[in-house]
Amino acid sequence: MTKKEPVILITNDDSVVAPGIHALVEAAKGLGRIVVVAPDKPQSGMGHAITINHPLRLTPAPYFGEGVEAWQVNGTPVDCVKLAVDKVLNGQPTICLSGINHGANYSISVIYSGTMSAALEACIEGIPSIGFSLLDHSLEADFSAAKSYATKIIKKMLSMELDKHTCLNVNIPAVPESLIQGVKVCRQAYGKYEEDFEERKDPSGKKYYWLTGEFVNNDKQKDSDVWALENNYISIVPVTFDMTNYVLKEKLAKSFKF
Amino acid sequence: MTKKEPVILITNDDSVVAPGIHALVEAAKGLGRIVVVAPDKPQSGMGHAITINHPLRLTPAPYFGEGVEAWQVNGTPVDCVKLAVDKVLNGQPTICLSGINHGANYSISVIYSGTMSAALEACIEGIPSIGFSLLDHSLEADFSAAKSYATKIIKKMLSMELDKHTCLNVNIPAVPESLIQGVKVCRQAYGKYEEDFEERKDPSGKKYYWLTGEFVNNDKQKDSDVWALENNYISIVPVTFDMTNYVLKEKLAKSFKF
Repeated sequence: MTKKEPVILITNDDSVVAPGIHALVEAAKGLGRIVVVAPDKPQSGMGHAITINHPLRLTPAPYFGEGVEAWQVNGTPVDCVKLAVDKVLNGQPTICLSGINHGANYSISVIYSGTMSAALEACIEGIPSIGFSLLDHSLEADFSAAKSYATKIIKKMLSMELDKHTCLNVNIPAVPESLIQGVKVCRQAYGKYEEDFEERKDPSGKKYYWLTGEFVNNDKQKDSDVWALENNYISIVPVTFDMTNYVLKEKLAKSFKF
Repeated sequence: MTKKEPVILITNDDSVVAPGIHALVEAAKGLGRIVVVAPDKPQSGMGHAITINHPLRLTPAPYFGEGVEAWQVNGTPVDCVKLAVDKVLNGQPTICLSGINHGANYSISVIYSGTMSAALEACIEGIPSIGFSLLDHSLEADFSAAKSYATKIIKKMLSMELDKHTCLNVNIPAVPESLIQGVKVCRQAYGKYEEDFEERKDPSGKKYYWLTGEFVNNDKQKDSDVWALENNYISIVPVTFDMTNYVLKEKLAKSFKF
């Protein structure tokens, strides 16, 4: 009996024309049947948003060349995964890949990130998934090291017996491949963004605000993703969709009785 | 020394005109200084989305009567919390309340819910928070039992020594108060939505899709929020923003070495 060819669903949050998703498609080439279903415009910061107030369109995305079936959606990254499973594939792919994101998704960013929310949506549905992010925001970012490691990580995932709810948050330092120290399986660093909205006035004198902010790392432990990245390791954080705070659950059970 | 009056930030995802947020303001009246900062239009299903591609406006929301400072924002629930802290309060409130949502946010819904994402954002910022949801979607929902229990839970929170990262997901069964069995501290039930996009054709014959889906509960344990609600308890799930899957972290550390 021959093993069935894996079906690899690829999405992202930077849209079908972002260089990062093209790098990811190249990284996955030869490892299975590739199907791209990704947003038609940038969706960074969309978190786990779904579209319920307007209908979705699914149109061909003729940007990926021969051998790659590709679609674009006028919705969020999570919408893309849901539509891919229900209407494009009519079933579950073997794995789902998201990215490669232009910019970091370490620590608390996992919760705001469209890239990671797409991966987590797949994981909720029982599809092992990986979100990839490169620590370089620019459109001209060099994806060569990221691509090379992405191939290794995807191959590893495809060769393993995986829990169906496996979801990996992979961040890659923006350094040449020769400087990368290897991969480290980590936990999400304890950190947050400190907001500082930039206040401006429009021509009629009315105020408006741009969200800006700076990441503050409050975690000095060596098993965090931020530590790994600062030391030129690729960080891999397994992500869960069970958001129960079990420590507080035990504590509060005694207090909340009425 | 007299104790300082608590500052209670209130937000939601159904917008400043939804009956649910007005019920929550009433529930909190008399417990502190109330400041409302909420979306100017419905934001259900926005998850943890933030607005980075357009600027935000903060305008008075004259819908809450005397003694309640209220603002509306052309953004997501998470934007509202960020703007409230940085530009309205110029500092952190004592607690943040979100809701009362028109509709359930149990189990995996926590991840899609704008109501819960607003509460979780406060929690990330170190502000204890509670998201309230009533198991009735309709605009005409009866909030009387929900309001009465919300007051009790808010009072309890304000009287306790709390971890600053406490975030509670409170769901309230849609039954008369006399039938409510009490409150139960639970974990998030293991369940998911099974999508079934409704396909239609526009007047020019092109297909479009509406997201529909049904919640499927795969969890029969008695410590889950779904069990509690099915048995007419109010469910309280403490929620965390640490999304690390610690069980998989240990397992994968052995495999991912290159």
